[in-house]
Amino acid sequence: MNTRMIRYLLSITLLIEAGLMLLPLLVAWIYGESTTPFLLTVIILLLISLPAVFFKPYNTRIYAKDGFVCVASAWLLMSLFGALPFVFSGAIPNFVSAFFETASGLTTTGASILTEIESLPRGILFWRSFTHWIGGMGVLVFMLAILPLSGGQTMHLMRAEVPGPTKGKLVPKMKDSAMILYGIYIALTLILAVILLICGQPLYHALVNAFATAGTGGFSVLNNSIAGYNSPIVEWVIAIFMLLFGINFNLYYFMLIGNFKEIRKSEELRVFLALVLISTAAIVINTAKLFTNLGDCIRTAFFQVTTIISTAGFATTDFDLWPSLSKTILVLLMLTGSCAGSTAGGLKLSRVILIFKNAMREIRHILRPRSVNIVRLDGVPVQEDIVRSAIGYLALYVIMLICTVFLISFDGYSLETNLTAAIACLNNIGPGLKEVGPTGNFAGFSILSQFLLALSMILGRLEIIPMIVLLSPDTWKKMFGQKESAKIRKLQRIHRAASPVRINKRNKK
Amino acid sequence: MNTRMIRYLLSITLLIEAGLMLLPLLVAWIYGESTTPFLLTVIILLLISLPAVFFKPYNTRIYAKDGFVCVASAWLLMSLFGALPFVFSGAIPNFVSAFFETASGLTTTGASILTEIESLPRGILFWRSFTHWIGGMGVLVFMLAILPLSGGQTMHLMRAEVPGPTKGKLVPKMKDSAMILYGIYIALTLILAVILLICGQPLYHALVNAFATAGTGGFSVLNNSIAGYNSPIVEWVIAIFMLLFGINFNLYYFMLIGNFKEIRKSEELRVFLALVLISTAAIVINTAKLFTNLGDCIRTAFFQVTTIISTAGFATTDFDLWPSLSKTILVLLMLTGSCAGSTAGGLKLSRVILIFKNAMREIRHILRPRSVNIVRLDGVPVQEDIVRSAIGYLALYVIMLICTVFLISFDGYSLETNLTAAIACLNNIGPGLKEVGPTGNFAGFSILSQFLLALSMILGRLEIIPMIVLLSPDTWKKMFGQKESAKIRKLQRIHRAASPVRINKRNKK
Repeated sequence: MNTRMIRYLLSITLLIEAGLMLLPLLVAWIYGESTTPFLLTVIILLLISLPAVFFKPYNTRIYAKDGFVCVASAWLLMSLFGALPFVFSGAIPNFVSAFFETASGLTTTGASILTEIESLPRGILFWRSFTHWIGGMGVLVFMLAILPLSGGQTMHLMRAEVPGPTKGKLVPKMKDSAMILYGIYIALTLILAVILLICGQPLYHALVNAFATAGTGGFSVLNNSIAGYNSPIVEWVIAIFMLLFGINFNLYYFMLIGNFKEIRKSEELRVFLALVLISTAAIVINTAKLFTNLGDCIRTAFFQVTTIISTAGFATTDFDLWPSLSKTILVLLMLTGSCAGSTAGGLKLSRVILIFKNAMREIRHILRPRSVNIVRLDGVPVQEDIVRSAIGYLALYVIMLICTVFLISFDGYSLETNLTAAIACLNNIGPGLKEVGPTGNFAGFSILSQFLLALSMILGRLEIIPMIVLLSPDTWKKMFGQKESAKIRKLQRIHRAASPVRINKRNKK
Repeated sequence: MNTRMIRYLLSITLLIEAGLMLLPLLVAWIYGESTTPFLLTVIILLLISLPAVFFKPYNTRIYAKDGFVCVASAWLLMSLFGALPFVFSGAIPNFVSAFFETASGLTTTGASILTEIESLPRGILFWRSFTHWIGGMGVLVFMLAILPLSGGQTMHLMRAEVPGPTKGKLVPKMKDSAMILYGIYIALTLILAVILLICGQPLYHALVNAFATAGTGGFSVLNNSIAGYNSPIVEWVIAIFMLLFGINFNLYYFMLIGNFKEIRKSEELRVFLALVLISTAAIVINTAKLFTNLGDCIRTAFFQVTTIISTAGFATTDFDLWPSLSKTILVLLMLTGSCAGSTAGGLKLSRVILIFKNAMREIRHILRPRSVNIVRLDGVPVQEDIVRSAIGYLALYVIMLICTVFLISFDGYSLETNLTAAIACLNNIGPGLKEVGPTGNFAGFSILSQFLLALSMILGRLEIIPMIVLLSPDTWKKMFGQKESAKIRKLQRIHRAASPVRINKRNKK
């Protein structure tokens, strides 16, 4: 493992975080609020990151494992340091709760431990929503887009951070791919912000809502979330954009270059749109009697479906009061999530499709043992190890979900609360049912549970593997072992310098 | 597909059911109750099965697929005809509800739609409990033990009916294996019945409780289940025997032939005992404050753990009132179930172990890409396709569970009720939480949901695949195709008979 390179990349990540924090600092300054919390955090970040940035290691090669370790550490560190403004400003005095809120922001979960939001400083709330936007596309992808790195390392970093079962490059150079993705992300966010401005929202609200929608996060600056605006048009706009941000960004690139064939071929997109349509229709039928107006019913149903399937988690109504069927549909959509390569969380639809198609194949294999069965996606055969890893991911996911439910059940909430809280965190959604429903929050959980849930958000955002690699004793042993061998190499160098004869001998040979 | 042989085997199965029904008929006669419901059913069964039994097909060869179709049809038919005494006696007037109750009995689930049990005729209750015992070891395994069949067909039938990821033969001949397993089953049941008699239970109660315990079913003849006896010693005896019936029966065989090495090697047994011990300890600590007496607490905790992990589902207390942690532990034990090759349901521990070990291997593979990793069970390498099928089973299981929860959510119960009801049925446990908790029952579900839950019980008991094979259009097409080709063959025969010259010609060649 190349620990020096990992340290270097982590330092740059923290430097980027310091840079990004200047934006909420500016907001705080504009609104005449205290800028100290941000200034302090920026200084701390600079003190830690700057020294290491100047020492770029000679050997910049990193391997798959380094990529995982790097990405997992980066997300943990960003959540830890990103929590500081909340603590310094007194908005969230407890550091673990602040860590929960920041991890919830960065992982675009949107689960909150805050009960009273509107009384908080605007700069702090801006930072809270801005973390959604930072985490949506991924910090390291951003780094790839701006950093002059080359070779395999970019691939390994991108693979560890971008979600989904398959990770393709749009263009031969990874750096260009990252730039294209970020370009689309920024453009879509700006379009949404402008539309919200046209809808009559003030700039501040237009921005924070655009950030939270683009990252499919779900933090709001109002106590009643999007319902607080009391504006059907805003609800429609945000619902449609949540849908758009749940689509694989690669498809936007294909649209831009006019390759519509690739879009038509996408099974994931078709399944996604079909799921949204069918779920909305089912919920409209199921909840029609709760509304006096069909328009309201359709809007609310469509909003809840998009907010859950895109894993944003905004609220316009308390769906915990809905009939059982509608709630079950929403919980199922929580599990599937949206398309791979979007900013949404969950299992990802392409993975769900692969798992389903593999199950069908196994059954077909039993029915016709001698037939050759290949799993196809978008009409193209899928490599066996990708199918295997999708199913393996499901197994890992179930194990992680069960562990989380078990560990937080010490707090004594009902099974429905614990299960949906764990699903909401692991899938980066936000609200669950009962105590953690759209009108509830996570403040009631103990500090230990909050910490565990924060970890499970990062676990879910990075799709489990990077975190496990980071936390495995093997990794730590290797890091230590690396130092050991560096020591040995240093000793060898000294030894060689002391006996030039042998080196000359070797050179002669 | 050999439809004639399948029809022949199914006829024998129904004949066996008619024979088994003579026992409750006898009980009804002894207690002076109406024997008509049983007599009528026996006559119907005989009328249907007897004609086919006399025409044993020449070609007795069946393939893997025939085995699945045969076992799935047998279980469906037995549940359908087994429901008749309930309907004829008026105990359960609705046929679908009676089908639910019979399927629940045969699959050793023990979920009931009856609210008032004690007022029902003793013969009917005897049949209800007896179905547990019949279903526990499997009807077709019984058939294998008594029928003079040979060759591959027995293997295919046993593979389709005996649960677990691997199906080994104890002795070279399948028939002998089946006999050994049934011998152990009968012996253990008799020992339990005698112990219950010694504990002071009347013969009738000793028998029905022995049946329900041996099959890990959970039907009781008292409204308050085992709690109704108010006897700590009975609770201990039944708890210990539920534990014994959750152990792989192969291990008893090894014990009998003195091969203790094989028992010591069993990882599944160790995990099983460890799970029971740890769960009991955790629940004792978690619920201690609810009891005035530590002995009561330990007994109740141990009983609930064994009744859930063995998927029996007897009740001595309403664990729905317990703290969240204890309930979560019980729900997790519902999912794992006990050992493969026992009468218990669930995912089976050896499968859970394989899934877990495979997940560990995948992680190890990421940490050390070039290392060779083999999954081992009991110290022996496991074939890759067995590991793959265990994970594939998990995927299928999750899909089935989600479908069941979704379909029964139309009835409007809470998610907690629907989820635990689906788990309780699919895993053949019996009680879930809330409306279907230990003091509740399944009567509130609509007829459609009852039918679906009954199917999911059979689905769970046969481990999904056989039912899917039976219900696949491909199977039905092939059955039809078989007839077609039989027709063609008949035509060919007629044709040949009409032109003997050609046949002679062929013979000369």
